[in-house]
Amino acid sequence: MSPFGALVGRTVTTGHGTQNDFVLVADPQDELELTPDVVAAVCDRHAGIGADGLIRVVPDEGVERWFMDYRNADGSDAEMCGNGVRVFVHYLRTTGLIDLPDGATVEIGTRSGPRAVTVTDTDAGPLYTVDMGEWSLPGGERALTEGFDVIVEIPGLDGPRAGLRIDVPNPHTVVALPDDAALDEAVLELAGPRAPRYQPAPESGTNLELALPLGEQADPGASSGTLGVVRMRVLERGVGETRSCGTGTCAVALAARAWGGSEAPDSWRVIVPGGEVRVDIEDKPGLLRRVLLTGPAVLTADVTLR
Amino acid sequence: MSPFGALVGRTVTTGHGTQNDFVLVADPQDELELTPDVVAAVCDRHAGIGADGLIRVVPDEGVERWFMDYRNADGSDAEMCGNGVRVFVHYLRTTGLIDLPDGATVEIGTRSGPRAVTVTDTDAGPLYTVDMGEWSLPGGERALTEGFDVIVEIPGLDGPRAGLRIDVPNPHTVVALPDDAALDEAVLELAGPRAPRYQPAPESGTNLELALPLGEQADPGASSGTLGVVRMRVLERGVGETRSCGTGTCAVALAARAWGGSEAPDSWRVIVPGGEVRVDIEDKPGLLRRVLLTGPAVLTADVTLR
Repeated sequence: MSPFGALVGRTVTTGHGTQNDFVLVADPQDELELTPDVVAAVCDRHAGIGADGLIRVVPDEGVERWFMDYRNADGSDAEMCGNGVRVFVHYLRTTGLIDLPDGATVEIGTRSGPRAVTVTDTDAGPLYTVDMGEWSLPGGERALTEGFDVIVEIPGLDGPRAGLRIDVPNPHTVVALPDDAALDEAVLELAGPRAPRYQPAPESGTNLELALPLGEQADPGASSGTLGVVRMRVLERGVGETRSCGTGTCAVALAARAWGGSEAPDSWRVIVPGGEVRVDIEDKPGLLRRVLLTGPAVLTADVTLR
Repeated sequence: MSPFGALVGRTVTTGHGTQNDFVLVADPQDELELTPDVVAAVCDRHAGIGADGLIRVVPDEGVERWFMDYRNADGSDAEMCGNGVRVFVHYLRTTGLIDLPDGATVEIGTRSGPRAVTVTDTDAGPLYTVDMGEWSLPGGERALTEGFDVIVEIPGLDGPRAGLRIDVPNPHTVVALPDDAALDEAVLELAGPRAPRYQPAPESGTNLELALPLGEQADPGASSGTLGVVRMRVLERGVGETRSCGTGTCAVALAARAWGGSEAPDSWRVIVPGGEVRVDIEDKPGLLRRVLLTGPAVLTADVTLR
């Protein structure tokens, strides 16, 4: 018996956004019942296709748009995924399910509500800009001025470090490191004796980002202005270290801007192990504080399960 | 530009043997030039298909048989792979490239020379028995009687342990552990401060197996006789911890038999994280010392690279 259940004989597509990878399953009639067991079997990296998550592509109920039914690799439902949204829209566009010319915006449905996604075609392939919504500071505004509101012990580093908590809206803790050596040597383990320790402990867990600010450069996307540059690693809550995390890149840009003071840029080039993305921060008075994430998306293969 | 080079648009097949997983590429005209870069891109677990290795399926030069052109996930050439051979023959059989009825034997070409593989159909699917060839003791015959010839320090365990070195023909070091807790808590890291340390140090590296002998059971494959049972974990040289290693299961069975004394069985059920296999040891006087590995093989999907 195949562990792939309802997906046996079906052709699905694989893709990734900065190496956060997904299996996309078209289900235009919204008729596929995917049990957690089947999702986990498909996402298994040795006995299945292997992916960080599975995205079922279904029509949004009563609305003229597509809904991203996103599942974690263990089969559980997930809210949203900044890298997954880009791959989802790239899939819709590439397979002709939507018509999205250069510069156009499409709204898609997610469990966190609708998201606007804009495409920009470049020589290196399309880039997708996702409105990631509102961000907030669980430690209050003072944390932004002080630059930290939590102490984190991370094995591999010499002594505890100060961190800044940011919700995007899932919880993140961002720690600044001084150089590449520290960033490379830090140990990022989810559990066990070498898991990071927080003071105070986060109530419902946290993602942890290690950030190395690298200065500024001219912004190629704007005629004036500068782009902050930051390198990072991420330990995803419930997953482990990954090559990229969409909301994590937003949290790192927000923290790096806070640490940079009042002159720090609002736009950041964020380098993750799996590639790089751009984060644009908006918090003009009277407007919502929101953050935009721009990055690539790639489809890698069409897969028929046996 | 796709990183998959010569494989773009081509349909390949994925499969695994006890979760040691492979990409199989049919090349009946022996015309595909697969660079290490392309192999590494295909085997990348996030930006490619993801596999422990790639097997190009080609005719054996001047011989009426198929040759297993096996590459490691990093693109380098590899000699042989006990789990890969089973998946290779299962692929040949399933796709009709060979006709192999229940109980029949086929010879296939590998970089370590020809290998005989016999199929046995069962209710749970076919099992393939691979003649893994000769085994030997780098520490000499005395090691077999004494049961060890190397001291290994493994983080997570309380104090150093005695190990037995066995070549199958690649180098293995097998360490016995007393219970499931020790087997689960041992840290198997390839490099860094928590890598295992050997006394004496192995000249060209070694695979490391942790073995937990679990007693004996009646042999379901024979009318009389018993089957030894052993649970194991493996740290593969140059790879890291894996869910299975064909030659590693043979080394563990050989070590467990040595530790069991003169009454120990010649046949072993070896439980790896990715499943289980059977190892039959032959060393009758006047015959070659050889070892047979029997286990399942599964094809999971057909994949067309973009």
